[in-house]
Amino acid sequence: MTITAAFYRGDKTFEVKQIEAEAPGAGQVQIEVAFCGICGTDLHAYLGHMDARIGFDRILGHEMSGVVKAIGEGVEGWKEGDRIVVRPLDHCGDCPACNRGHKHICHNLKFIGLDSQGAMQQLWNVPAHTLHAIPENVSLRDASLIEPLAVACHDVRMSNVTEGEDVLVIGGGPIGMLVAMVAKAAGGKVTISEINENRLALARKLGFETINPKEVDAVAEVLAKTGDKGADVIFEVSGTQPGIDLMTAVGATRARIVMVAIHATKPQVDMFRFFWRELQLIGVRVYEPEDYDKAIASIAAGEIDADAMITDIRPLDKIGEAFAELIANPNAMKSLLQING
Amino acid sequence: MTITAAFYRGDKTFEVKQIEAEAPGAGQVQIEVAFCGICGTDLHAYLGHMDARIGFDRILGHEMSGVVKAIGEGVEGWKEGDRIVVRPLDHCGDCPACNRGHKHICHNLKFIGLDSQGAMQQLWNVPAHTLHAIPENVSLRDASLIEPLAVACHDVRMSNVTEGEDVLVIGGGPIGMLVAMVAKAAGGKVTISEINENRLALARKLGFETINPKEVDAVAEVLAKTGDKGADVIFEVSGTQPGIDLMTAVGATRARIVMVAIHATKPQVDMFRFFWRELQLIGVRVYEPEDYDKAIASIAAGEIDADAMITDIRPLDKIGEAFAELIANPNAMKSLLQING
Ligand SMILES: [Zn+2]
Ligand SMILES: [Zn+2]
Ligand SMILES: [Zn+2]
Ligand SMILES: [Zn+2]
Repeated sequence: MTITAAFYRGDKTFEVKQIEAEAPGAGQVQIEVAFCGICGTDLHAYLGHMDARIGFDRILGHEMSGVVKAIGEGVEGWKEGDRIVVRPLDHCGDCPACNRGHKHICHNLKFIGLDSQGAMQQLWNVPAHTLHAIPENVSLRDASLIEPLAVACHDVRMSNVTEGEDVLVIGGGPIGMLVAMVAKAAGGKVTISEINENRLALARKLGFETINPKEVDAVAEVLAKTGDKGADVIFEVSGTQPGIDLMTAVGATRARIVMVAIHATKPQVDMFRFFWRELQLIGVRVYEPEDYDKAIASIAAGEIDADAMITDIRPLDKIGEAFAELIANPNAMKSLLQING
Repeated sequence: MTITAAFYRGDKTFEVKQIEAEAPGAGQVQIEVAFCGICGTDLHAYLGHMDARIGFDRILGHEMSGVVKAIGEGVEGWKEGDRIVVRPLDHCGDCPACNRGHKHICHNLKFIGLDSQGAMQQLWNVPAHTLHAIPENVSLRDASLIEPLAVACHDVRMSNVTEGEDVLVIGGGPIGMLVAMVAKAAGGKVTISEINENRLALARKLGFETINPKEVDAVAEVLAKTGDKGADVIFEVSGTQPGIDLMTAVGATRARIVMVAIHATKPQVDMFRFFWRELQLIGVRVYEPEDYDKAIASIAAGEIDADAMITDIRPLDKIGEAFAELIANPNAMKSLLQING
């Protein structure tokens, strides 16, 4: 059977072409992909920052939804027509992390859609252990938000946010916005710090308090909002040195700071504040199965405003345009590709 | 009554002189100080780094032991002759930290012996709430180690070290050595990383494994010792950039890194490793009452080698010599002043 697939060819280029679909192997399930979102990591790949890792024959995509089309040998529990999302992590099963049950940070982790072919193709074979079913009342469009939402659920779970705590999210991009929504659903009083006024307007529309640190003294604002106490939980999602400075400056006594952003260079961190206020820093990476369960339950319960998160949808053959415009538009949240249907 | 007291007069100078002792005020207890150790913070003060905070009429000293001499108005539960140590923290009772029960990191914390007069005087008045009784079998000499030992007990408690975990202590000075002893008593398999060969020899004599990162690849050593897993718990006690680099590089999956050292400048921290291994950083400061209880129990149980920790003892009138030699001797652990007796 012939399907359409998009291959990354290096330097901001995709080739969309017809290929012959392969049957699912043993232990695999074949998915008819419905929608696939474009992740920040996909943008990095598109810009050529990951060429050494992914090569020039890579199909990207992991923020997807779809329907089971065929079942490989030995797979149980799934059947044609099941509506699913994929948790795109393939662990080795025998390393210090796997041996302790932390498979999601396996020392030899393969991220499906980067280290192997991804969802930006019409039929996609994945290991059966990566599937999660989605409920009837969640549309395939909205289900494509589950992967980034599971990131947010993991981050918030690791932070242990409880009812009534003051939460600061530094950075109001798609992940920051999802973290804010999940933290709010967990009972947090959430403020978003962001320098893009369009994102700030969206954050306010979604019911969050906001701070623009280019306009006001962000530390003074947080102290004023919290009766001089500071924020109990801080999510650093900006990936910037000013974000790193802000996270330590606004922390309440024993505040938990969750490091969501990936800092490729080593920022300067105010270790004195960690001592002074007994702050804690919590590193977080991807998600565990329970975070997927939580994300699915959360979207099914209507806790996430999917309409606000989805900026646009284009067919797969417009992938080049979709990536170029997402890079060009600092206001965008999620861009989706419609792969089938 | 006339007593001897040592006043810091600025720029590495003390004046030892006779003063008239004051009677204890309401809520205070008067202590006949037995021994007083010289802390790293006292050395900072001596070198002039804290002049703005402490002024030039300050009696230093907080690592002490002593005997109750007199009781102020309204004090209950203590009597003349009680053998005690002082937990030198005076909290405000009404700030965001105090209101949450974290009095030891009160926003307006006064550290007795820096922000008010300390123990390097023969009779010392302190708030009654700062006292802890010491058992019969602990000598007054050894009891002067309880304050720094309580720091180590706090650090180890915050780290949650459990039986069989691989522990790395970066920095083998007095606090690092005490942290190592307490972590070992908690069941940790402790390695000390240190560049001073004399300290390394002492560490080995005390039964610890050691690494000299000037001589070997410390990361490779830790991985080799832990079956490629890395250290489960890391105490950064060195206060150096290489220490900061090592702490993230050797962390196992979800390792806890305890920030014991006070970094006055902002080091560059590998935030990527926090993401990659889901590391956690735990800020720690001083101690809570239970850490004093633990330190006292630990020294009474013989878990701490006091002889190895005490480098020398001098009378109070040799305070200048004691500070000068402690600065000059990189091998020294604790120097004590004998204040009375
Ligand atoms: Zn993603
Ligand atoms: Zn593994
Ligand atoms: Zn001290
Ligand atoms: Zn207070």
